[in-house]
Amino acid sequence: GLMPRFDVAGNLIGRRAGRIDGLAPIVAGSHIDTVPNGGHYDGIVGVMSAIEVARTLKQNGIDLDHPLEVVVWSNEEGGKTGSRSWAGTVQERELDLPSLGDKALGEGMAYIGGEPEKLARNTRRPGDVAGYIELHVEQGAILDRQGIAIGVVEGIVGIKRWYITVRGFANHAGTTPMDQRQDALYATALMVTEIRRIITGEPGRQVGTVGRLDVSPGAPNVIPGEVLFSLEIRDLSMEKVTRLFTQIERSLGEIALTNDVEVSFDQYYESPETPTDVGIQNLVRESAAALGLGSLDMPSGAGHDGQSMKDIAPLGMIFVPSKDGVSHAPTEFTSEEQIVNGANVLLRTIIGMDQLLKYY
Amino acid sequence: GLMPRFDVAGNLIGRRAGRIDGLAPIVAGSHIDTVPNGGHYDGIVGVMSAIEVARTLKQNGIDLDHPLEVVVWSNEEGGKTGSRSWAGTVQERELDLPSLGDKALGEGMAYIGGEPEKLARNTRRPGDVAGYIELHVEQGAILDRQGIAIGVVEGIVGIKRWYITVRGFANHAGTTPMDQRQDALYATALMVTEIRRIITGEPGRQVGTVGRLDVSPGAPNVIPGEVLFSLEIRDLSMEKVTRLFTQIERSLGEIALTNDVEVSFDQYYESPETPTDVGIQNLVRESAAALGLGSLDMPSGAGHDGQSMKDIAPLGMIFVPSKDGVSHAPTEFTSEEQIVNGANVLLRTIIGMDQLLKYY
Repeated sequence: GLMPRFDVAGNLIGRRAGRIDGLAPIVAGSHIDTVPNGGHYDGIVGVMSAIEVARTLKQNGIDLDHPLEVVVWSNEEGGKTGSRSWAGTVQERELDLPSLGDKALGEGMAYIGGEPEKLARNTRRPGDVAGYIELHVEQGAILDRQGIAIGVVEGIVGIKRWYITVRGFANHAGTTPMDQRQDALYATALMVTEIRRIITGEPGRQVGTVGRLDVSPGAPNVIPGEVLFSLEIRDLSMEKVTRLFTQIERSLGEIALTNDVEVSFDQYYESPETPTDVGIQNLVRESAAALGLGSLDMPSGAGHDGQSMKDIAPLGMIFVPSKDGVSHAPTEFTSEEQIVNGANVLLRTIIGMDQLLKYY
Repeated sequence: GLMPRFDVAGNLIGRRAGRIDGLAPIVAGSHIDTVPNGGHYDGIVGVMSAIEVARTLKQNGIDLDHPLEVVVWSNEEGGKTGSRSWAGTVQERELDLPSLGDKALGEGMAYIGGEPEKLARNTRRPGDVAGYIELHVEQGAILDRQGIAIGVVEGIVGIKRWYITVRGFANHAGTTPMDQRQDALYATALMVTEIRRIITGEPGRQVGTVGRLDVSPGAPNVIPGEVLFSLEIRDLSMEKVTRLFTQIERSLGEIALTNDVEVSFDQYYESPETPTDVGIQNLVRESAAALGLGSLDMPSGAGHDGQSMKDIAPLGMIFVPSKDGVSHAPTEFTSEEQIVNGANVLLRTIIGMDQLLKYY
C-alpha cells in the first residue's frame, strides 16, 4: 500500500497517507548500498523492517495520523548523499567526485532515477518532516556480548580527526648510539601508548584510535626521521572530544621534548555529534520493555543517515545486535529473531511517534 | 712509485715492492664509490690517506720489509663486491643483479677494468695477505662529540635482523569500545617501547632499531588489524645480540598475550661480527699517543670492506671524526686537520705492522 517515487537525489520513497490533512510525514528507513565486500545486514535490515512495519499497519487496519514515508537513502556508504540532500549540504562539486564504480556520484544518482541538476529542490526545512526513525545493526559487539536485544541510541557520536607529525633525525642505525638518537618512531610509540592512557583514563564511552601510521624513511637499518600518524576521537560530547585532545596535545608535547623530537598537529576532519530526541528514546525503551525485551542506552559510534535530520526533525535510532560486532565484512550477522525483535520495536515506536510528534 | 693494476673484480691496486722476497703484502685501502647523493669523505678519505702514506714512505726513503698494496675496492656501497671477491664469497648470480646505474654488477665490473668471468681467480687464502688496514670516517658522532681524534676500531659489529608481525583484529574505530579492541598498533607501540628498554637495560654499546613499520589496513577510522615491523640488533658480540633478542622475544610474547594479539618473529638477515687484530689495535693506539692524539676504543657500527679480510689476514681499522655523525649525505664532513691526523696514524701503524706481522 505504499506509493513509491524517486526523489531528485535518487532516494526511493514509499508513502502511505495519514489521517490528518497537512501533517508532515514520519520517515523511517535506512540504506541498501554496501561497502565493497560488505555484509548483508548493514542498512538493509532497517529498510526491510520499515517496509514490514508498513505492511503490518496495513494488514491490521491501523491508520496513523501522520503520513508514513519508508525511505531507501541513496549512496550512504559513499557519503550519505541521499539523506544529506534533504539537509541541503551536498555541494555541487561532490557530484563530480568519482565513486568506486565507473560513474561519478552525479551520474550514479541519475542512473538510479534521480535528477542531480535539480538537487536543490530536495532541501527540507524544519517542520517538513515530523520525525525520523531508523533501525540499524549495531556494528559493534556491545549488545551481542551482553545478550541485549535492543539498543536505545542516545545519539551519533561527534568525530574529530588529526594528522600528527613527529620529526626526529634519520640516522645510521649502526653508528648512532642509543643515547644520541632522535628516533621519531620510538617517540611515536610512547605517544600511541599515552593516547590510550588518556582516552581510557576517565569514565565514559569515548574512543580514540591511531589507525594510520607512516614511517620515513622506513628502512630496517635507518633510525626513523619522521612519522605521520592519524588520531581520531569520538564521543557523544564534542566538548569531551576537545578536552581529551587538549590533554593529548599537552602530553605529546612533553614526550616530544623529552625525546628530542618535534610534534605538530593538523586537524583535518570534524563531524559534530547528533543527539537523538529524548522523547523518541523513551518510546524505543518502552516499546522494548512492553515486548519483554532488554534494552541498553548507548551511543552510535558509527555515522548514519539519521545525522542528516539533525536540523530538520526529531530523530530516533534503534540498534539490533551484530554478532561479534563484525561489520563491513561478509561475516556480518544478525539472526532472524533479533531482526524480528527490532522490527516489532520499530512498529511500536512509530505508533508512539504518531501520537508524540503531534505535541512537538 | 706504486705499480698500478686492476684485478679481475675491478679493484684498483697500486703495489710497492718490499725488501724481503716472498713476504705477502700489507694491504691498505678503502673505496671511492658513494651512495646516491652521498658525501665526499666516506671511503675516499681512506684511499687518499693510503696513497699519501705510500708517497711519504717514498719521499722519506723508507722501505718496508713487506710489499705494500694500496687498494681501491670496487662497489663497496653496492655490496662490497670487490673486497668479497678476495674472500671468495661473491656468488655468480650476484653478477646479474641490477645496480642503481644502467649496468648489472658484472657489467659494471668489466666496465671499470675487471674480468668477471675470471672472478674465482681473485680468492685469497690465509697467508696471501700479511695484514689489512683501513682508515675510514666514523659515520657516527662519538669521536666528534667527545673531541677525540682517533678511533681504535675493536671490530665491526655483528648484525641480526628480524621482521616481527603482530596480528590483532581490524575493527570499526567508532563502534568498538576501548576494552574490546585487539589493536595491533597499540600492542606494537608497547613492544617498540619495550625493545628500547631491553636494549638500553644493560651496559655496552649494543644498538637496537625499529626502522620500518607497516600498519594494515592503515585507515584513520579502522582499528589496526596487523602490523609488520623490523628489528635490527648490532653488537660486537653476537652472543649478546642473541641474548638480547631472547629477552625481547619473551617480553613481546607477554605483551601480545596481555593485549589479545599474536606476535611472530622471522629472522631474515645475519652478518657475523668481525673482531680486529689486537696487535694492530695496539699499534693504532700507540701511534696516536706518539703523535699526541687522543684515541678511543670503539666498535664500528657500520660495515666495511675490512670484513672481507676476516678469514684471510689480521685486520685493523682507524676511525677519524665525522662532524655531527652525518654520513651518506652531502653534509658529511671531516676537517683537513682530522684527516691529516688519521693519515699520520695510518703511516705509523703500517710501519708498525711491517715489523709486527713478521711474527704472525
